[in-house]
Amino acid sequence: MAETSIQGVLDRNVRAIARMISLAEAGKPESRALLADIFKHTGHAHVVGLTGVPGSGKSSLVRELTKAVRASGRTVGIVAIDPSSPFSGGAILGDRVRMTGLTSDDGVFIRSMATRGSLGGLAKACLDAVDVLDAAGFDVILIETVGVGQDEVDIVQAAHSVLVVSAPGLGDDIQAIKSGVLEIADIHVVSKGDRPDAGATAGHLRGMLTLTQRTDRTAMPGSGDQGEPWAVPVLVTSAEPASGIEDLLGAIDGHRAHLTETGGMEQRRRKILETRVLKIAEDILRSDFKGRGAALAALMDRVRNGDIDPHGAAVELLEAFRQD
Amino acid sequence: MAETSIQGVLDRNVRAIARMISLAEAGKPESRALLADIFKHTGHAHVVGLTGVPGSGKSSLVRELTKAVRASGRTVGIVAIDPSSPFSGGAILGDRVRMTGLTSDDGVFIRSMATRGSLGGLAKACLDAVDVLDAAGFDVILIETVGVGQDEVDIVQAAHSVLVVSAPGLGDDIQAIKSGVLEIADIHVVSKGDRPDAGATAGHLRGMLTLTQRTDRTAMPGSGDQGEPWAVPVLVTSAEPASGIEDLLGAIDGHRAHLTETGGMEQRRRKILETRVLKIAEDILRSDFKGRGAALAALMDRVRNGDIDPHGAAVELLEAFRQD
Repeated sequence: MAETSIQGVLDRNVRAIARMISLAEAGKPESRALLADIFKHTGHAHVVGLTGVPGSGKSSLVRELTKAVRASGRTVGIVAIDPSSPFSGGAILGDRVRMTGLTSDDGVFIRSMATRGSLGGLAKACLDAVDVLDAAGFDVILIETVGVGQDEVDIVQAAHSVLVVSAPGLGDDIQAIKSGVLEIADIHVVSKGDRPDAGATAGHLRGMLTLTQRTDRTAMPGSGDQGEPWAVPVLVTSAEPASGIEDLLGAIDGHRAHLTETGGMEQRRRKILETRVLKIAEDILRSDFKGRGAALAALMDRVRNGDIDPHGAAVELLEAFRQD
Repeated sequence: MAETSIQGVLDRNVRAIARMISLAEAGKPESRALLADIFKHTGHAHVVGLTGVPGSGKSSLVRELTKAVRASGRTVGIVAIDPSSPFSGGAILGDRVRMTGLTSDDGVFIRSMATRGSLGGLAKACLDAVDVLDAAGFDVILIETVGVGQDEVDIVQAAHSVLVVSAPGLGDDIQAIKSGVLEIADIHVVSKGDRPDAGATAGHLRGMLTLTQRTDRTAMPGSGDQGEPWAVPVLVTSAEPASGIEDLLGAIDGHRAHLTETGGMEQRRRKILETRVLKIAEDILRSDFKGRGAALAALMDRVRNGDIDPHGAAVELLEAFRQD
């Protein structure tokens, strides 16, 4: 059964891939051995992350970019993180519906994942899904995140190349700055390029990049990388009719080539894996705490009564984890 | 020294408050005993969280709301979470500048906190700052978060009353839905009410609330609360000239009264503290891992070489934590 499933993924069987991602999403212990096997078959794909505020046109961009990658003879896997209701557990499918033009192409696999409220494991499930698509041999994997917060930033930073999408006319400031993602971009995309203010938004972004001297994105902050600097481009695209998409794909491929040539890719891969390992450890710890039931409730009573402060309670919880 | 600082905070000395929050932000071990003392003096304030996408007009709303609370004879503490550069470490102060009309009033204390990249402790520092302002006797504490992601959601959910701010005209869908924060709102605010499409945005929100049957926000998801339902209001406000602000303050005060009368407040306080304790434990674990230097690097080598998968590496790290 296990062998069959993994072979199915390696053979790029659509049902096997979908089943394996569902296993990853469910997060059950039984899936760990399978996903560890899957991990051994990864490393081929170019993982590209897209982020930007709601309404910035990410989904349309993903659709057009997918067509362009396909036209270049490569296959595309897409993992889209959707907001969802903690009550229904269901993803809001509006954006996905717009992508249906692609679903009849077996060189494209699209998977939506719901965010499922705050007690997460989302990043883990998302990156496991990327592993599955990588093992299945998809050449380019696009991670699309809705929103601009820390969880989304963590996920999109697990990509080899990070695209930050801004739309013209979403307010008087640049969304990437306000949302704190200016620095994580390897490539800036101004979507909805047919709007008259697209050029101004691109100009503002270029100005900000100059101001913050962000030309060294080969290096992730703190990685100590001293390679050739990567000049972060600002590209203007339109979805309907499509324009600027070829240039964008050129920049994405160029970024990968740059990373490979400068040694930046190896550093990124290590950094991405380290972040991923730390997040999984946190997830495990969180489940352990949640499983402590009565002991946790008693501890929380003491916090509520002021007998212990939150930091002291956290230290006690960790001590209990060590002792068990 | 310790006694002096705490007494200074309790006396609402501005410099003592600022120093104590800086200590919390620095996160040094020395500050733990002080903050544990501060925690004992908390529990008076009504903590109100505001969230919404960039450009939704949160800062202007905070300013007008602050004036209204002051006019009712109460004091206001404000903690604003700003995006920041991991390179400069500095907050982008544009929004803060707009609040300067308030800074000469000693019944108002404003503190900006930078997000400082992904390795966090932000939620902890933010909630420690709320404790300091609570201990200092501020009646209402406003937490303003920029962005709509998980970290921001975690922070804003540490409030007793959660306001989700949407602006008309930020795209064809409702930002609260796309950003996944529809369900966490106790009160929806449509800002920029002078725009012609404000009524339509409010109507859409009311429609969505009906659709998702979100009238039970006394209960937090999973809290098991069976109290009277709270009907989530949708209010339209303007900042210049100010309008709808009195009604909004009425709704905020009404929500607090509702929580107190139904027993929902006690449940929220417990839930908030539990989430907070778990986040602190995760922060501690993360620092422990980061401090493992060579051992961590060796483990990451094994992951990179495919000798162990990320989940297995996380389990090994936790095992090392237990053994030490």
